[in-house]
Amino acid sequence: MFRKILIANRGEIALRIIRTCREMGIKTVAIYSTADRESLHVKFADEAVCIGPPVSKQSYLNIPRIIAAAEITNADAIHPGYGFLSENAEFSSICQEYGIKFIGASPEMINAMGDKATAKATMKAAGVPTIPGSEGLLSSVEEGISIAKEVGYPVILKATAGGGGRGMRIVYDDKGFMKAWEDAKMEAGAAFGNDGLYLEKFVEEPRHVEIQVVGDQRGKVCHLSERDCSIQRRHQKLVEETPSPIVSQELRDKMGQAAIKGAESIGYEGAGTIEFLVDKYGNFYFMEMNTRIQVEHPITEEVTDFDLIKEQIKVAMGENISGRNYYPQLHSMECRINAEDPARDFRPSPGKITTLHIPGGRGVRVDSHIYAGYVIPPNYDSMIAKLIVSGQTREEVIVRMKRALQEFVIEGVKTTIPFHIRLMDDPNFRAGKFTTKFLDNFNFEGL
Amino acid sequence: MFRKILIANRGEIALRIIRTCREMGIKTVAIYSTADRESLHVKFADEAVCIGPPVSKQSYLNIPRIIAAAEITNADAIHPGYGFLSENAEFSSICQEYGIKFIGASPEMINAMGDKATAKATMKAAGVPTIPGSEGLLSSVEEGISIAKEVGYPVILKATAGGGGRGMRIVYDDKGFMKAWEDAKMEAGAAFGNDGLYLEKFVEEPRHVEIQVVGDQRGKVCHLSERDCSIQRRHQKLVEETPSPIVSQELRDKMGQAAIKGAESIGYEGAGTIEFLVDKYGNFYFMEMNTRIQVEHPITEEVTDFDLIKEQIKVAMGENISGRNYYPQLHSMECRINAEDPARDFRPSPGKITTLHIPGGRGVRVDSHIYAGYVIPPNYDSMIAKLIVSGQTREEVIVRMKRALQEFVIEGVKTTIPFHIRLMDDPNFRAGKFTTKFLDNFNFEGL
Repeated sequence: MFRKILIANRGEIALRIIRTCREMGIKTVAIYSTADRESLHVKFADEAVCIGPPVSKQSYLNIPRIIAAAEITNADAIHPGYGFLSENAEFSSICQEYGIKFIGASPEMINAMGDKATAKATMKAAGVPTIPGSEGLLSSVEEGISIAKEVGYPVILKATAGGGGRGMRIVYDDKGFMKAWEDAKMEAGAAFGNDGLYLEKFVEEPRHVEIQVVGDQRGKVCHLSERDCSIQRRHQKLVEETPSPIVSQELRDKMGQAAIKGAESIGYEGAGTIEFLVDKYGNFYFMEMNTRIQVEHPITEEVTDFDLIKEQIKVAMGENISGRNYYPQLHSMECRINAEDPARDFRPSPGKITTLHIPGGRGVRVDSHIYAGYVIPPNYDSMIAKLIVSGQTREEVIVRMKRALQEFVIEGVKTTIPFHIRLMDDPNFRAGKFTTKFLDNFNFEGL
Repeated sequence: MFRKILIANRGEIALRIIRTCREMGIKTVAIYSTADRESLHVKFADEAVCIGPPVSKQSYLNIPRIIAAAEITNADAIHPGYGFLSENAEFSSICQEYGIKFIGASPEMINAMGDKATAKATMKAAGVPTIPGSEGLLSSVEEGISIAKEVGYPVILKATAGGGGRGMRIVYDDKGFMKAWEDAKMEAGAAFGNDGLYLEKFVEEPRHVEIQVVGDQRGKVCHLSERDCSIQRRHQKLVEETPSPIVSQELRDKMGQAAIKGAESIGYEGAGTIEFLVDKYGNFYFMEMNTRIQVEHPITEEVTDFDLIKEQIKVAMGENISGRNYYPQLHSMECRINAEDPARDFRPSPGKITTLHIPGGRGVRVDSHIYAGYVIPPNYDSMIAKLIVSGQTREEVIVRMKRALQEFVIEGVKTTIPFHIRLMDDPNFRAGKFTTKFLDNFNFEGL
């Protein structure tokens, strides 16, 4: 049993972890940079250690200082939260050396899942569907057409040296292949001085759907169903929900079993998330595995009544999971409230919160570290609150989310609240019709 | 379908009703006294009408002004909340006359349940258990002993003109009856100039347990199980929870059926609460019926997923209830946060809230109208927030409530938060061992 946990993080996730520790009767140690002196995680922890200036390398990313803080305060374990050192194999390994339990994945697992190619090969070997395509570069147009036929059209040709869409072509049939091949080769050669191409199945109308898993020290893994995180802007999630409007119970079971198989194949311990792309036919493909708690974990908690932070701590203490899987009993959605100006390309908007009213009432959960008078430092991630709303149905959740957003008053800085309100009114969003590209054509004007 | 509802109330309950109206797509009209100009219910309603000065008779209790506000704003219905005009038969009747739907009980029902003797007789006739005793005054000691034998010892002798415990004796057997009779008669005669006595069964180790009911216009009533409201100070509830630690499923069914029988016998429409005393043997006795929404209704919502305000509105619009009963799926508890000084006999502590931090996270719901900078007026009830905490078990709820109370920061005024924290640590409270007298011997010192 841990007596004391050091939280190697800041902001809402530090507070989130402190809350569960309090409920479990475990003492907490906060660490903070000088920019976070007035933060609630510092105030609400049992002890707090200042570990350096706002430069992350000298504070929240500084392993020796964090280990020293844990030693000084006699902490049994470290919870890394998300971001910062949460997926740093060296940190996990040094914690081990110092006899401090790292509440997260082992160094080996972090390394295995941190490298995309290794992760994909590992999951493929375990029987988890991955996006099919060529193994490496294509040697000729004939080889390309042959593989395209094998994986099925449409496919996407990509420049190996590519980026920003250049040297990239979507191909729908044999006939188009030849022209796409020549165009892409020429474009890639001109842009990157390297005309090497490879090929992947093109995922049509992709949705980002991830499966939450928890594994124990015996190597037993369970899943907690999916989260749909398709509402993204430049690969940054803005809204997440569970259940996904496009996932049937049959697909949930298939994806859940694939996630368990993948995680069990590597003896995964702790909470992790396997991210998939789901196409319009209900095929799903492994993207990556996050070996840590996710920002959006509360929506899973709300619909399954499973405290994920508590479970991380219990598993780290050697407790076994029950073994059963968890299915959504309600609908839940999270809007990320960022101090950003959605009308100006989501430019960060740090500064002092002059007026604050946090929404309340039925079905509303707010995970946040802000208060009236709090100064949002410019040094860190701009997420300042997670508004989590639950209800019986998706429809109920959307109307409740809208009223909660309307009640949420944050003055002094710009926030993403107006964007979320507009999203809740969008007929396609309300109908559950969206892909990961949804925000590419969203009207952000006048927000 | 109502298009617009006027809320004839203030504070958290006005906000609570606005929230559900928003979720239902119904417009809202707030009314306010000049003392409540800066209140959130005024800010969050679609329209707001100032109806007078802080003196309640000239504003929140002033029927002509409220009806005028409803007429001016073209409201279809009035929700009275709790307190103020919520159980005023005249108001209910005038609303009817003006063709404005009163979201509450009919004048007849309010009258029937408002008079204690009528209410008791009505319930008794419907087969609901009431506290047995003499019908009126006792003519002799022999009659007293005979009735005492009939209802079973212990009984309590009470002076008909009594008050403050004078002329009151608890009697445990025939032997003690004679002496108690003489003592009580003498004491009553001396104190009130009237030595008339009556007798009731003495309820041992009483708990206040109430059953929530909802009836529709067909006359069909369902129950939503119980709330234990035994933690009271001078008949003011401070903490409520559901399920009650002393109510078994068998007792729940019995009390629920009795409540349904009672409410159906009077054709009850809308949300109502039947309050019972439960003794240490699990016998229960009707106390009174509240023909309105209760302060503590959210704990029922949290464990049954039934929105009581929504249901009130739907029933008022003529919708039928499903007919099934609702049982607690979780445990939920409410602490009333009052602007009062618990160390000084709960003296009201109005004034400006200088610093505020509202707790959040998993299982925490806050229903409140306060914000940083809000000035609590001295004119009204001192309740400023309801902290509602839910979880899988009572034990989990108590630890979560404690951490939420510890996070709750209200500076500028005294509050009941320190009292609640002490209560959550009390071994008897934690064990579920308490009666309505529990706070008589509670240590309020140093709070």
